Amino acid sequence: MTIASPDVDALIARVPAVDPARERAAWARLDRLTKPPRSLGALEALAARLVAVIAEDLPGPRVPAILVFAGDHGVAARGVSAYPQAVTVQMLANFARGGAAINALARAVGARLVVADLGTLATGPLPTGIRDHRIARGTRDLASEPAMTVAQAELAIVTGARLAHEAIDDGATLLALGEMGIGNTTPAAALACALAGVPLELAVGPGTGLDPVGVAAKRDVVSQALARHRPTADEPLRALACVGGFEIAGLAGAMLAAAGRGVPAIVDGYIAGAAALVAQAMCPRVQSALVASHASREPGHRAVLAHLGLAPLLDLELRLGEASGAALAIPLVQAALAVYREMATFAEAGVSDRAP
Amino acid sequence: MTIASPDVDALIARVPAVDPARERAAWARLDRLTKPPRSLGALEALAARLVAVIAEDLPGPRVPAILVFAGDHGVAARGVSAYPQAVTVQMLANFARGGAAINALARAVGARLVVADLGTLATGPLPTGIRDHRIARGTRDLASEPAMTVAQAELAIVTGARLAHEAIDDGATLLALGEMGIGNTTPAAALACALAGVPLELAVGPGTGLDPVGVAAKRDVVSQALARHRPTADEPLRALACVGGFEIAGLAGAMLAAAGRGVPAIVDGYIAGAAALVAQAMCPRVQSALVASHASREPGHRAVLAHLGLAPLLDLELRLGEASGAALAIPLVQAALAVYREMATFAEAGVSDRAP
Repeated sequence: MTIASPDVDALIARVPAVDPARERAAWARLDRLTKPPRSLGALEALAARLVAVIAEDLPGPRVPAILVFAGDHGVAARGVSAYPQAVTVQMLANFARGGAAINALARAVGARLVVADLGTLATGPLPTGIRDHRIARGTRDLASEPAMTVAQAELAIVTGARLAHEAIDDGATLLALGEMGIGNTTPAAALACALAGVPLELAVGPGTGLDPVGVAAKRDVVSQALARHRPTADEPLRALACVGGFEIAGLAGAMLAAAGRGVPAIVDGYIAGAAALVAQAMCPRVQSALVASHASREPGHRAVLAHLGLAPLLDLELRLGEASGAALAIPLVQAALAVYREMATFAEAGVSDRAP
Repeated sequence: MTIASPDVDALIARVPAVDPARERAAWARLDRLTKPPRSLGALEALAARLVAVIAEDLPGPRVPAILVFAGDHGVAARGVSAYPQAVTVQMLANFARGGAAINALARAVGARLVVADLGTLATGPLPTGIRDHRIARGTRDLASEPAMTVAQAELAIVTGARLAHEAIDDGATLLALGEMGIGNTTPAAALACALAGVPLELAVGPGTGLDPVGVAAKRDVVSQALARHRPTADEPLRALACVGGFEIAGLAGAMLAAAGRGVPAIVDGYIAGAAALVAQAMCPRVQSALVASHASREPGHRAVLAHLGLAPLLDLELRLGEASGAALAIPLVQAALAVYREMATFAEAGVSDRAP
């Protein structure tokens, strides 16, 4: 039984189908540029797709914004993370002071950083600079009950979408999307199983650093959640509510919103990948606008990317989250578009093309 | 019989051994930063090594310069490339006008670009902006005679070193090194066989786009060159002179010079990798300062990188040259150092480290 959701339906309705003629035209231009055809490999494929998504003839440099959504997870009480749950809130303060990896990376790549709390355990006011969109004090324990109500999941999606729209209204033309939330590889694994058919053994990994005993226990938790809720790709909103999280829902909403505006969305690692599974199950058209930044060290991530039909740009054995991999991919997106936009054609440059 | 070369010996003598204590201290700092230990994967390994090479406690943002050395190859007359030899000189004009891939990429990553002709077929003055360091009008056909005299090879090394020193004197603190030269995967393949023991079948690939018949013929050419000259890693200067090229020699010189100044040198693809083999055979200490930008689609490249002991940062199926892959790696180097320099430690940020 599919759950009706006018707000989410409206987001989905705004996602256009990318015009295949635009992508073909982009390939034709790429093949006329002064380089052996396809010699820039994955960068050319990225350029061709993004030119079609952006739907401009020669897209200028992107204005990048990084969105990091935070949430806490009831299931963390079951010991599914190597870190205490308090770290989520402590890291909000670290983001606010500029000391986290994503702060350094955002500065390095020249991107604005927006951090929003969609539902951590924080009590009282949040540190200055952290956007307050708390829906609840963490999700419920997905192994024993739905993590969120459907209404909460919808609100989180809409909130993420709104934050994406705001960033775009403020000038962003490229989003990089990531998260912070102790315990959130557990919902991500459950969604990978439910929405992408990733086998449990592959989907559940060490996250921030569980030992093998911890991984086995986490696997039992995910198995229990799947048996209890039976989430499926036919009902992505229900699946999200049952085994997801606030930050994951928010990221799915941001992806739908970005795609609806013709703004490419760079997807960080395993958890953001799970959010992409939700967005894509809701709206397959979203896929064109998504860029897979990297293949994470979390073992199930490649299977998630394969299900999404996305090839990762980087393979640096990252497993941090915080949009760190997505931030690292921003210069590659800029480079792909720069090559497309600025290179001379063989005819313009008077360079001999290869012998026929 | 080793050939004496005071100029090259002087370059080699200036390359320091990196202090292992510096690298250990860098790892200790990385492990105190607010992230799960080693969760930034290859980026952390890069940071630790570069901090030791740069030999500063908290290295600031690098000032990048891209050096592209051009040369022509007598062996091109044997049809070892999919493109006519005239393209090398035509591309110099394209570089000068800003229309090549590396021009777009240099602008995208904010790097200065220096293009130098070390020995193309160009007659008359070079286009404005191209540095004129022509040693000869192309090399000789390495399949039938030494490509260069030893004196020419030395001059090319010293010229590349001088261009690197100039860039560093002008403020560069990070070099990205690449080349342009129709036919130059043939000398690169010969050097890969001679200096890294790469099997002929693997070392000789399609380059810019040879068909299988062309690859087989190119393999015969390389085989003939190896049989004639018997180049070995014991005599890297002689090997370089016999089967190398002006731009390859120049790149080797630039790598030695950069390492001598504590300036990391990002190595582009297969041809630059062959130059790194030359530099490393001359001076194993150079390795610490080299960064492998990417794994090229040229089949022998991974074997070359393995011999160098370098892990590529990117794997985008590039096969263009021009330092294009090296340019794409510049933001990753900047990001690695930014994380190292700017992240807070657990203690500074008041974030709980993992349970013991």
